[in-house]
Amino acid sequence: MDTNTLGLIAAALTTTAFIPQVVKIWRSRHTKDISLGMFAIFSIGVFLWLLYGIRIDALPVILSNGITLVLSLTILVFKLRYK
Amino acid sequence: MDTNTLGLIAAALTTTAFIPQVVKIWRSRHTKDISLGMFAIFSIGVFLWLLYGIRIDALPVILSNGITLVLSLTILVFKLRYK
Repeated sequence: MDTNTLGLIAAALTTTAFIPQVVKIWRSRHTKDISLGMFAIFSIGVFLWLLYGIRIDALPVILSNGITLVLSLTILVFKLRYK
Repeated sequence: MDTNTLGLIAAALTTTAFIPQVVKIWRSRHTKDISLGMFAIFSIGVFLWLLYGIRIDALPVILSNGITLVLSLTILVFKLRYK
């Protein structure tokens, strides 16, 4: 497998991985066991990766971190809403 | 802030973000609200990022994804152990 493909698959997996967590919370409305700290810190980090991607003009980095940021912030909002 | 520093801070945040979730589970022994699917997919993705980092010989990518993989697998094992 060539290196670019490896990177794209890795990006796709680490981005889409958050979807099952969003769906689980949406169905259960429970977030007690989920760490607010984790998703707060992670969202900031992903936002900085997004800025980094814009700086180096790398579309895969921009796309994957843009989507991950939306998913991570969704979980953060759910965590704040459904204690 | 120069681009390299931005990337290092982003990497540090998206890596250390998982520590509060590990600590929360360790204290509570509860993982019900955490998505097994998320951490299974995420761990595979991070593993591929680790291979990608080795392929392009980029120490920051190797280090951050190596640590994230350990943390993500820890949460996965906790999820399987503490239903």
